[in-house]
Amino acid sequence: MRGDFRDELTRVDSSLVTMALAVREAMRQASAALLGADAALAQVVIVRDTEIDVLHQVVEDRIYEIVGGRVPAPDDFRMIMTTLRAAADLQRMGGLSAHIARSVLRRHPTPAAAPELAVLFRSMSLVADDLSEKVVTALAEQDVAVAARLDSDDDAMDELHRQLFAVLVSPQWPLDVEAAVDGALLGRFYERYADHAVNIGHHVLFLATGDRP
Amino acid sequence: MRGDFRDELTRVDSSLVTMALAVREAMRQASAALLGADAALAQVVIVRDTEIDVLHQVVEDRIYEIVGGRVPAPDDFRMIMTTLRAAADLQRMGGLSAHIARSVLRRHPTPAAAPELAVLFRSMSLVADDLSEKVVTALAEQDVAVAARLDSDDDAMDELHRQLFAVLVSPQWPLDVEAAVDGALLGRFYERYADHAVNIGHHVLFLATGDRP
Repeated sequence: MRGDFRDELTRVDSSLVTMALAVREAMRQASAALLGADAALAQVVIVRDTEIDVLHQVVEDRIYEIVGGRVPAPDDFRMIMTTLRAAADLQRMGGLSAHIARSVLRRHPTPAAAPELAVLFRSMSLVADDLSEKVVTALAEQDVAVAARLDSDDDAMDELHRQLFAVLVSPQWPLDVEAAVDGALLGRFYERYADHAVNIGHHVLFLATGDRP
Repeated sequence: MRGDFRDELTRVDSSLVTMALAVREAMRQASAALLGADAALAQVVIVRDTEIDVLHQVVEDRIYEIVGGRVPAPDDFRMIMTTLRAAADLQRMGGLSAHIARSVLRRHPTPAAAPELAVLFRSMSLVADDLSEKVVTALAEQDVAVAARLDSDDDAMDELHRQLFAVLVSPQWPLDVEAAVDGALLGRFYERYADHAVNIGHHVLFLATGDRP
């Protein structure tokens, strides 16, 4: 019985990795849509986000189904919690990619990322993709070392976010208010994306060690 | 054994209600600090947010302690999930209040909410407080009817958020870029606060009915 339980949870975890791969792809495409003012690609991201929501539902339903029929031991409980939390974080990450895509569509054909901000957003998108890759690895291989490295990538994102804000509110800002508003919100979306990636790292560490940061 | 488990979970739930009351107060004070450009009150919110984080930790630790020693039945599992998720949402709501407070401090003595936006932010703060009150009631009394009403309050917040955005990007906008950037981020904080309140309503409904929206 116990073995079955763990097997079933492991199968759910492979759905989690599928989610993480979809989230990474959504964020890559959202960043490409942002930097290229590409409305068609932004539409793809929005569709992908709804797929991620479906995957989230599948993970949750499977967990409740598994638990509904049996009684989890404490170890299994920790695994269940990790899975549900990671799935919730991934779902939000997908949602943030869709927010970026919607900004692209709202301003199209004007780029939502003003040319003066493009370098910063390119850097943020690279950090985001690096975080996404580590999330996939951390989840697929329960890799504690990779999970622990997510925090320092997040420091890089926070620093970029600070730089963005400094540019936005500097008196030399040459752009219109709408571009600044978009810039502020887009920056926030990338920053929150990184926060959720860090959360997933913490979940993986918690599963492995029982420690919460 | 089973009775003890449920008793212990019920005690954890009273910590959750304490959290919800602290979150409501934090948001009331954050809104008052915003509308009155009150730096001292903003500082109070930031301290209160750290207290909310501690309460969150207490709730999580208690849950893991309870589960660590025993085996939850499926019904108990649903209660545990609800508690952990509601605690996580409350913690984020506290964090969003602190974000508002930090905006107040960053711009002080200039009001972070430009005078032209004050009416909208006053409306958003009233909706936020109404949501907070319903969250307290839903959690304290497991009140399904109140939990279900959170969705329509959130519609009101979304509408205010749309209005705010329209004002921010209108060509008639008479203010500087920094005020617009602050306005956009503050609007987002209120909108997310409402989303987390709605999540808590969903958790309470799920606990009562087993249905997820």
